Amino acid sequence: MIIIMKPDASQEAIAKITSLVEANGLQVHLSRGSEVTIVGVVGDKTKLNGANLEIADGVEKIVAVTESYKLANKKFHPDDSVIRVGNTTIGPGTLTIMAGPCAIESQDQLMQTAFAVKKAGATFLRGGAYKPRTSPYSFQGLEEEGLRYMKEAREATGLNVICEVTSQHAIESAVKYVDMLQIGARNMQNFELLKEAGRAHIPVLLKRGLSATIDEWLNAAEYIMSEGNENVVLCERGIRTYETATRNTLDISAVPVLRSRTHLPVIVDPSHATGVRAYVAPLARCAIAAGADGLMIEVHPNPACALSDGPQSLTFEQFEQLTGELRPYADLAGRSF
Amino acid sequence: MIIIMKPDASQEAIAKITSLVEANGLQVHLSRGSEVTIVGVVGDKTKLNGANLEIADGVEKIVAVTESYKLANKKFHPDDSVIRVGNTTIGPGTLTIMAGPCAIESQDQLMQTAFAVKKAGATFLRGGAYKPRTSPYSFQGLEEEGLRYMKEAREATGLNVICEVTSQHAIESAVKYVDMLQIGARNMQNFELLKEAGRAHIPVLLKRGLSATIDEWLNAAEYIMSEGNENVVLCERGIRTYETATRNTLDISAVPVLRSRTHLPVIVDPSHATGVRAYVAPLARCAIAAGADGLMIEVHPNPACALSDGPQSLTFEQFEQLTGELRPYADLAGRSF
Amino acid sequence: MIIIMKPDASQEAIAKITSLVEANGLQVHLSRGSEVTIVGVVGDKTKLNGANLEIADGVEKIVAVTESYKLANKKFHPDDSVIRVGNTTIGPGTLTIMAGPCAIESQDQLMQTAFAVKKAGATFLRGGAYKPRTSPYSFQGLEEEGLRYMKEAREATGLNVICEVTSQHAIESAVKYVDMLQIGARNMQNFELLKEAGRAHIPVLLKRGLSATIDEWLNAAEYIMSEGNENVVLCERGIRTYETATRNTLDISAVPVLRSRTHLPVIVDPSHATGVRAYVAPLARCAIAAGADGLMIEVHPNPACALSDGPQSLTFEQFEQLTGELRPYADLAGRSF
Amino acid sequence: MIIIMKPDASQEAIAKITSLVEANGLQVHLSRGSEVTIVGVVGDKTKLNGANLEIADGVEKIVAVTESYKLANKKFHPDDSVIRVGNTTIGPGTLTIMAGPCAIESQDQLMQTAFAVKKAGATFLRGGAYKPRTSPYSFQGLEEEGLRYMKEAREATGLNVICEVTSQHAIESAVKYVDMLQIGARNMQNFELLKEAGRAHIPVLLKRGLSATIDEWLNAAEYIMSEGNENVVLCERGIRTYETATRNTLDISAVPVLRSRTHLPVIVDPSHATGVRAYVAPLARCAIAAGADGLMIEVHPNPACALSDGPQSLTFEQFEQLTGELRPYADLAGRSF
Repeated sequence: MIIIMKPDASQEAIAKITSLVEANGLQVHLSRGSEVTIVGVVGDKTKLNGANLEIADGVEKIVAVTESYKLANKKFHPDDSVIRVGNTTIGPGTLTIMAGPCAIESQDQLMQTAFAVKKAGATFLRGGAYKPRTSPYSFQGLEEEGLRYMKEAREATGLNVICEVTSQHAIESAVKYVDMLQIGARNMQNFELLKEAGRAHIPVLLKRGLSATIDEWLNAAEYIMSEGNENVVLCERGIRTYETATRNTLDISAVPVLRSRTHLPVIVDPSHATGVRAYVAPLARCAIAAGADGLMIEVHPNPACALSDGPQSLTFEQFEQLTGELRPYADLAGRSF
Repeated sequence: MIIIMKPDASQEAIAKITSLVEANGLQVHLSRGSEVTIVGVVGDKTKLNGANLEIADGVEKIVAVTESYKLANKKFHPDDSVIRVGNTTIGPGTLTIMAGPCAIESQDQLMQTAFAVKKAGATFLRGGAYKPRTSPYSFQGLEEEGLRYMKEAREATGLNVICEVTSQHAIESAVKYVDMLQIGARNMQNFELLKEAGRAHIPVLLKRGLSATIDEWLNAAEYIMSEGNENVVLCERGIRTYETATRNTLDISAVPVLRSRTHLPVIVDPSHATGVRAYVAPLARCAIAAGADGLMIEVHPNPACALSDGPQSLTFEQFEQLTGELRPYADLAGRSF
Repeated sequence: MIIIMKPDASQEAIAKITSLVEANGLQVHLSRGSEVTIVGVVGDKTKLNGANLEIADGVEKIVAVTESYKLANKKFHPDDSVIRVGNTTIGPGTLTIMAGPCAIESQDQLMQTAFAVKKAGATFLRGGAYKPRTSPYSFQGLEEEGLRYMKEAREATGLNVICEVTSQHAIESAVKYVDMLQIGARNMQNFELLKEAGRAHIPVLLKRGLSATIDEWLNAAEYIMSEGNENVVLCERGIRTYETATRNTLDISAVPVLRSRTHLPVIVDPSHATGVRAYVAPLARCAIAAGADGLMIEVHPNPACALSDGPQSLTFEQFEQLTGELRPYADLAGRSF
Repeated sequence: MIIIMKPDASQEAIAKITSLVEANGLQVHLSRGSEVTIVGVVGDKTKLNGANLEIADGVEKIVAVTESYKLANKKFHPDDSVIRVGNTTIGPGTLTIMAGPCAIESQDQLMQTAFAVKKAGATFLRGGAYKPRTSPYSFQGLEEEGLRYMKEAREATGLNVICEVTSQHAIESAVKYVDMLQIGARNMQNFELLKEAGRAHIPVLLKRGLSATIDEWLNAAEYIMSEGNENVVLCERGIRTYETATRNTLDISAVPVLRSRTHLPVIVDPSHATGVRAYVAPLARCAIAAGADGLMIEVHPNPACALSDGPQSLTFEQFEQLTGELRPYADLAGRSF
């Protein structure tokens, strides 16, 4: 931690800061410049919790030097993690494709989709049983009934299944039926839910919050990991910006940035990022080219009748064509699916 | 709802859209221009749920004409609401001041603060018992013990008390101790929590999400109201933008915008909006000048030692000076406190 | 300047950095922590221009300690500046009101408006002769003819006049007719124009760029000042965010932030910030409450027929009512108009 | 154009609107719903310029149906354009690689770079002679001397050369030395400069503004085209968002969005978008996968000593390695270089 003093900070103010830091068992290195004095703090800064140095006399600002996330931090785990889920793994060498409807609408819709996406190369079936919708008057999901359909689809096809959870209660149900839990963008900083997911015994896909920084996202992963569940996969799904041509703005740079900061796998969801079917294919290619470990794509037997997110869903034919197009990109990236 | 067709939409495509709309019991008004054809849809558009017109052949885009929130909508409730909470009301004519520490740290800290803020004019004591923190390694709150201190402070001072809730479990505890629940920014689209708050029998303060649009915020209020709890107060607390000079960017325009769209009261939190103590006073004056119904301000007996948000907290003396400064602004706005 | 080394930086890398810094005539203070080593650089950092320390071996990041703007910086000019313009001053004690049409449309329109805004308390007439419009097919302004009308209005009413300039050529014309030049948001980083304005002999109003940080804005002011023209006034006019309820988001916090960083006066333009007539009055009150030195407001004899920005313009009656409402706020702020 | 009336709009207000529209020679189609009335306007809406319908009695909002850009609009030019520049073309089938230093520093630096980038596959040499810098105290460029070095490099290598212009004066000089003008992000809405570039007789590369929407960007292109110069190429270089992990956020979705809206070629600048050397390669691959027509990449003989943007510049070796990596991606995209 570095404390930058104001140009007019008094000797007394500087002395007070250094005493306070030393009294907490830390060491101080002073750099006195012609304009400002800088106080370097050496040691475990958590000892200073509760000492709000920002508002001490003469202090201009505090600069953090180390990240607050540890378990998710590449500095302490330099090798990229491979996360085992159901009958497969997510991580280096593999391109994981998760596909399925935004919302589970019926047993038939889900089963049809499961067979279609498996045929095209997906290893995961996605589908929402608990839907976080902006308006209370939109379709809210089939809940546990939907989870049962997921389990049936898994048994019939051998696909791994993943489902978003939106409450402690949903987690308790979901762990009985699915291989992986998903925490959605709107709940990325629902810390109670993160802790609960950290106590579950199955892997978690953590989507980035609508306006979460990468740093906040990794701290959210840390919440899950610090409860004992280190099987976390991150999913970039677009961030909120001023541009309205797409539903969100896919922050594709997040893929290489995460690669440099964390050992956790990263997948990309081009369907939610754009909200427009025609943009899903180019952005899926991008994701692989950027180095992503996988993709999450919305597929529906009849998008024109989907109860949620129809406009961004692919038909079975479109999805099969897409996975065909993606194979040479996966090859170039040294990944198979 | 208005359907704008592509310039090259075929007669057949237009006919298909109009048949689909009419088959759902709605009326169609066609406007054929030299460049584009527009299909006006008259009637209850929820009948079209599940028909994803955006991806029908020949459709360029869909424009919504009416808002999806109803109970919160000023169009259907033109008079501004007055919300009764504990021994007071929030709404026209009153300037409600909520003050207290970010986190409840001890009985003594809370009780001291309660007496100090009451003396200076506050009618609500705020204080966090469940703290949503970015890092899992930061102080997480005293939980139910903190709620008990709130109740004691209420009994000792006659202040109304408000506390943030972050889970169903926290709501169940909080309703036994406090007068008003607070839903924080990070949970504004935690729809399960909103529904739970809608089933509670005490009023709810709903903070704006970090990057929520005003429309999404009013839909979040609608989630609470549609469960039967119409006693909702909104709190603007700054939005996320590219500017880093302040912790968030206070969207002061939200006050008059909300006034034109909803009948619910609106208060402003200048402490979280800026994250800097020196900016709290000018923005508190602004909030009143913009027409806000109240303020939420962080006050701490010793900000330099606060376990959370010390840098933005006022001392007792600073808070008393502030409320003194605010009185003439309240007078100009026709409000008293 | 502070150089933060990577956790795994070698002794050799650290030694290379310190040698490089010392070779440029600067001093080094090393802080070796258990996790990272920090290199404090003491002295004039411009000596290091051209040494890209960010990419030297072992460097994690560079933290700037001092601002790059000097003439605009409050640290070196602690007293707030008073800028003399025409027959008046902008700064402490005064509330400067600039009013007039977005675009000058005719002699008659401008002259009528000049008399009306003067009567209501304005001391400046604003009006656009060169209009930066998003589409090339929108009205582009009367150019020099408009400037002549400005001068006539000034002679008839005694108002000071201000006009936006968009090119070197426009500056050459404008200085012959007006009291103050305006640099618009879209040109805030048109550095050639800034330098040209810095060589003009009349004061400059510098609007904030659509997505400029406060730091970039002050650097833009520095461009003008470093050419010899220190008579710069800043104008907050809303920034671009994800929220679409208003045309831009008025960053009202910028007023107190600027007050702490610069000695230059700050005015606020609520008309462009919101784009909606009904929000102009509440935000004008806010601006005064936040500590602004003045306001810029669009007024038009007949907003329904304005060639530019009609929807946000006030009629003469609305403007007169507004200035009446603002007087007690100006009194509270210790300003007169 | 569609006019949406307020729910409580009177018959008189509706009649007044329809009369006004018809009086301007346009046709009206009325749709009366149970909640709102919608007025469809058929015909050339420019006839309504100066009639500010937004503020007419009873009007809720106006929805535009057609884009304001025409020459740049794919609707009127469905085939993708091929732009001829110097000895090559930009557009379908070609992957154009522009490479070179951010700033031209010396004849030697530029000539060395020219030979290196040509060897690696670039067909354009980029280099800044006029540098728009945030601070007036940073290096501002060699100006006309730099342009001369560009011309020499062009003659020695056969590369096409491109240079940013920041003023009318710079355009007048540049057209004598270079093959293509570049308008930078900070000048994207410097409309005087756009018009001047529209009167030049060489092609123009138009970078996206820091916070420009795609619609504003295409309108900026329209400014150039409507002056007679239809040889415009667009360059995505990252937009400003709240995320600070990268210098800007590369909006990779802009590539397919532009493809659907305009016939103009699109290239991507991963160097400015990220500001970090390590992220240039993954994002260059992305750009090709998304369908871009080319890349602009910063290359410097010795990035550690670059006077501008060193941290994001590649060395000659890194650049050669990158173009090697990009060839199979270009092949997949059906493009050669």
